[in-house]
Amino acid sequence: MSDDLKIDLPDVTDVHLARARIRHQCCNTPVLRNPELDAWAGCKLAVKCENFQRTGSFKFRGASNAILCLDEEGEDDKRPVATHSSGNHGAALALAARLSGREAHVVMPDDSVPTKIDAVRRFGGTVHFCKPTSQAREDGLDELIGRGMVPIHPYDQREIIAGQGSCALELLGQDPGIEMLVVPIGGGGLISGCALAARSQGVKVIGVEPEGAADTAASLERGERVREWSPDTIADGLRAIVGVRNFALISSLVSRVLTVNDDDLRAAQAVAWKHLRMVIEPSSATVLAALERYPELFAGSHAGVIVSGGNVLLEDWHSAVGR
Amino acid sequence: MSDDLKIDLPDVTDVHLARARIRHQCCNTPVLRNPELDAWAGCKLAVKCENFQRTGSFKFRGASNAILCLDEEGEDDKRPVATHSSGNHGAALALAARLSGREAHVVMPDDSVPTKIDAVRRFGGTVHFCKPTSQAREDGLDELIGRGMVPIHPYDQREIIAGQGSCALELLGQDPGIEMLVVPIGGGGLISGCALAARSQGVKVIGVEPEGAADTAASLERGERVREWSPDTIADGLRAIVGVRNFALISSLVSRVLTVNDDDLRAAQAVAWKHLRMVIEPSSATVLAALERYPELFAGSHAGVIVSGGNVLLEDWHSAVGR
Repeated sequence: MSDDLKIDLPDVTDVHLARARIRHQCCNTPVLRNPELDAWAGCKLAVKCENFQRTGSFKFRGASNAILCLDEEGEDDKRPVATHSSGNHGAALALAARLSGREAHVVMPDDSVPTKIDAVRRFGGTVHFCKPTSQAREDGLDELIGRGMVPIHPYDQREIIAGQGSCALELLGQDPGIEMLVVPIGGGGLISGCALAARSQGVKVIGVEPEGAADTAASLERGERVREWSPDTIADGLRAIVGVRNFALISSLVSRVLTVNDDDLRAAQAVAWKHLRMVIEPSSATVLAALERYPELFAGSHAGVIVSGGNVLLEDWHSAVGR
Repeated sequence: MSDDLKIDLPDVTDVHLARARIRHQCCNTPVLRNPELDAWAGCKLAVKCENFQRTGSFKFRGASNAILCLDEEGEDDKRPVATHSSGNHGAALALAARLSGREAHVVMPDDSVPTKIDAVRRFGGTVHFCKPTSQAREDGLDELIGRGMVPIHPYDQREIIAGQGSCALELLGQDPGIEMLVVPIGGGGLISGCALAARSQGVKVIGVEPEGAADTAASLERGERVREWSPDTIADGLRAIVGVRNFALISSLVSRVLTVNDDDLRAAQAVAWKHLRMVIEPSSATVLAALERYPELFAGSHAGVIVSGGNVLLEDWHSAVGR
């Protein structure tokens, strides 16, 4: 996809509409607050738990919005939908499609986390394996589109971005005192939607990337979207390259993008277990890792952090967290 | 302790007072709802997550209430407090005492879950190990009382019962449609307090015990409190024998006590992970296990289930849940 295309960006109204549209399907996920965690972080935290969203991640918000939009458009022949995904978007799309009476087909890298492969199947999706490269994913998806399926992009799509943004709207309603929002960045679907919502309420947004998938930070530095990156991080949900729409929104709405390394992520997974008794995936741990790595940015503030998902392979989690 | 003693039972006013007293210290824990879990259970569930309470279990409610009552009584020499506990009450008392500027001393069986021993120490408590028998626990505690410490019973005490009951008050406020409450039974602190709150609002209460610690069910059948029981269950938090006050309240307020076996508990831990992405201790799994084992009692209802804690040894949890 060329960045020169005229792109249709969602705005904050789309986020409000998405929230209204998906409300009956999505969980209103809880916000955890914990004095011991606050003492550790040196600031007041509101932890938005998208790991307790249906299918185990925020991705269900966007998938639900995209499918319900298809239904509203009168696309009532219930054509199958297709996507590529390392897992969370795939599972989310599978469930959203099933709730709408559609088939979902998901192209997945053959090194995907087994828990995530199982999840796609559990929610009724059909998995098509491919080599773990961006090109192989795109090729796999093109083939499915050629068979008449409707593509639903994991992040670089108006309806997806708007759906993910509902998470921030919900959080800011649950805790109106939040001054800044800390959000992981993979392809940028979550942060771009959340930034639309947060900035409309005067709330600052900070993104976090793993060093091994810091293409957004590199893109911002260079002033244009990096299109090639070989990701190397345990945060399997954040290995995607930032999307065109996502980068456009991040460039204008996000204050800063921080990076953390894989050891930081493991330590942050252990912190989430120690203080919150919560199992989070490495991608989600980015936001807690940033608090530990850049304490001066958060000291004394009231920050909302979005825990994006909880779909981990238990063996990996266990070895990260110890006992 | 003889059951013939005139005992001071709390009433629902004590529960309301406890809730007001502890509010600034305790977390207002979230209620999870999940359509996939509901489909599994065949009823509508509101899952009250005391695993996200401070110190990882509901026990902090009672401990906080007991310590704040001591403070209110003008017992301002800040005498150390002491208790015996398999772990959760110990950690809870340690934190509550620390917040009040007191020392806490905890007699623990030497086969306690390591995570729970660590927790007592992490919150500033001093651990005194004893043999894993009721007698050894009592003897250990008596010695500490002899040294001038104030005993805080893990469950058979008015302030403790009232504090635990705040959990049900909170839940029924969060979800006023609940028709019945399902609660684990160990010593009976949680269920007796919750039953005071629930019954005052016309909500039925069902208790659940592991078969290997079903002394309450046996006591109800016999019409008097069983005083000897050798517990044999993985639910380490429920091995205590039901208390005098607790049994009196359960006898008059609880509709039914169900039993589940350890395999049921392991399966229910896996269910909590599969549908809620939540790590719960075996004691907490009792309530989900009961839904699976006695579906006819819950079919089509709107039930509140209290997940009492999340303090597990990860190895044990992992082997129960698989991947």
